[in-house]
Amino acid sequence: MDEFERIAHLRARFAPRPELATSLLIGIGDDAAVLAKPDGNLAVSVDASVQGVHFRPEFADWASLGGRAFVAALSDLAAMGAQPKAAVMALIVTLTLDDAAFVELIRGFAEAADEYRCPVIGGNLSRGTELSITTTVMGELEGSGLTRAGARPGHDIYVTGTLGAAALGLVLLEARRPEHGRAFVERWRKPVARIAEGAALVPIATAAIDVSDGALQDLSHICEASGVGAHLDAVAIPMAPGFADLARGLGRDPLELALTGGEDYELIYTLPGGSAPGPGTRIGRIMERGHGILVKDAAGHPLPLQPRGYRHFQG
Amino acid sequence: MDEFERIAHLRARFAPRPELATSLLIGIGDDAAVLAKPDGNLAVSVDASVQGVHFRPEFADWASLGGRAFVAALSDLAAMGAQPKAAVMALIVTLTLDDAAFVELIRGFAEAADEYRCPVIGGNLSRGTELSITTTVMGELEGSGLTRAGARPGHDIYVTGTLGAAALGLVLLEARRPEHGRAFVERWRKPVARIAEGAALVPIATAAIDVSDGALQDLSHICEASGVGAHLDAVAIPMAPGFADLARGLGRDPLELALTGGEDYELIYTLPGGSAPGPGTRIGRIMERGHGILVKDAAGHPLPLQPRGYRHFQG
Repeated sequence: MDEFERIAHLRARFAPRPELATSLLIGIGDDAAVLAKPDGNLAVSVDASVQGVHFRPEFADWASLGGRAFVAALSDLAAMGAQPKAAVMALIVTLTLDDAAFVELIRGFAEAADEYRCPVIGGNLSRGTELSITTTVMGELEGSGLTRAGARPGHDIYVTGTLGAAALGLVLLEARRPEHGRAFVERWRKPVARIAEGAALVPIATAAIDVSDGALQDLSHICEASGVGAHLDAVAIPMAPGFADLARGLGRDPLELALTGGEDYELIYTLPGGSAPGPGTRIGRIMERGHGILVKDAAGHPLPLQPRGYRHFQG
Repeated sequence: MDEFERIAHLRARFAPRPELATSLLIGIGDDAAVLAKPDGNLAVSVDASVQGVHFRPEFADWASLGGRAFVAALSDLAAMGAQPKAAVMALIVTLTLDDAAFVELIRGFAEAADEYRCPVIGGNLSRGTELSITTTVMGELEGSGLTRAGARPGHDIYVTGTLGAAALGLVLLEARRPEHGRAFVERWRKPVARIAEGAALVPIATAAIDVSDGALQDLSHICEASGVGAHLDAVAIPMAPGFADLARGLGRDPLELALTGGEDYELIYTLPGGSAPGPGTRIGRIMERGHGILVKDAAGHPLPLQPRGYRHFQG
């Protein structure tokens, strides 16, 4: 089984059993699960940050790595439109992690939790041979929140903020040239979970997801869950000032980096056609499934950009 | 910092902030955190099972390892007296984990979840160089449930079931002699979370904890949280039939194995002096703090057995 087949196996094995999940509004397969509660439903999501896979200590101070782990988890609540309520942290530490690094890692995690007013109410400390931070977040929301499944042909596709900035920051770090674009490196080091934006979208959006794996790939999750296709307008993709020139100077295609770079944690969402414009930028339109997922240039010709596929069994 | 100092650091850093945690009944430092909810409070706990630390694949089939990871997490809900409601799973898998092992691991986890009627509502799949299963469990309970903090001098100490059976099973596996005590090996391979027993104790017990690290060590958590000491009666420690002889035959002191062996997942709890007897076996009495934590022989002389100290920042 490749990773996608394993994810499919997990989804099938953990498919909701009606007799046990009477209060389960949303199960595996969205940004968060949602349990029905009389005083506001509860959204629950878990995310792991693994050293060597999700972060490299040489690219950031330990406090930033702790903060990034927290925000990466919290972003799934933003994508549901939930308000953060509480988090629990499971930390696996190696024997080589020194005290100063440990304290800084915790400080960054705790300060991010404070910033989002999301208390860390429990945790677990284990030793291991690979450092990882697994964060479970819980949030409150009305109804089922923003799922991935409500996009329909004719709906407009929007994105908050700009795309690719965090990926460009990582390119700069990998090239050991962070001084060439401090703002982009900061976007990678200190991402933002779009909590307020997500909450504001609950009454109007038909589908939403956060950009963790890359805009095209995350959009493909909406398309799969909604049973639709999508056409994006290349010229509409929002990029930060200086992004395109800097990307080209590093030998990268700006559009490709913006659409496939991960860890922006912006929200991609859809609105019914004819709606008043939503926050951020309109970048395309939902199509019938048979039209596929395409990026078109100004002349309407498809560009050779495709989602790579799914990476997580939840998102 | 040693591990205990790191745990103290985590507890201090994540100490509840009253302005953020208005609905937090129990924070870090007990078996689970408890959030106030109008339809039954929510207990939340997280536990990680790390290959090479918490389990070795050569000692059990993959399904058993998956089930053990789930039960280890769920046992913290039992120790609070909570009813399992939902779980989320974060799995870090290595490239060397083959498909058959993956499927069996998930089967064991899922079957345990089914057995305890605790649906797995979300998860995350990551790759890494070390296999780990991090499980967050949520349960419902009335009030604050069974904390560690209510034991007072004069209260009686009880334990459900027997002690040391799982540890003896592990000794047999390590000695490559599982056939000498199949029942003990099964206790290690397929532990039980004392959910029903925990729920029944909520109205009567003054403190409770599950035996994950060893009875003496876990009892010391009650003593620390309650600000008390404890004296145990060596002759009262319940052991399964054949346990003592088999332990001796393997060169182990039965009493020491029963009191320091982990992963029994029985519940240690306290009742006010003069109460009707509780389920299980009375094994000692809560004392003033200055009396320390001691195990006494039939003549009342203290034995050289002491808790090793804390291992997790939550338990």
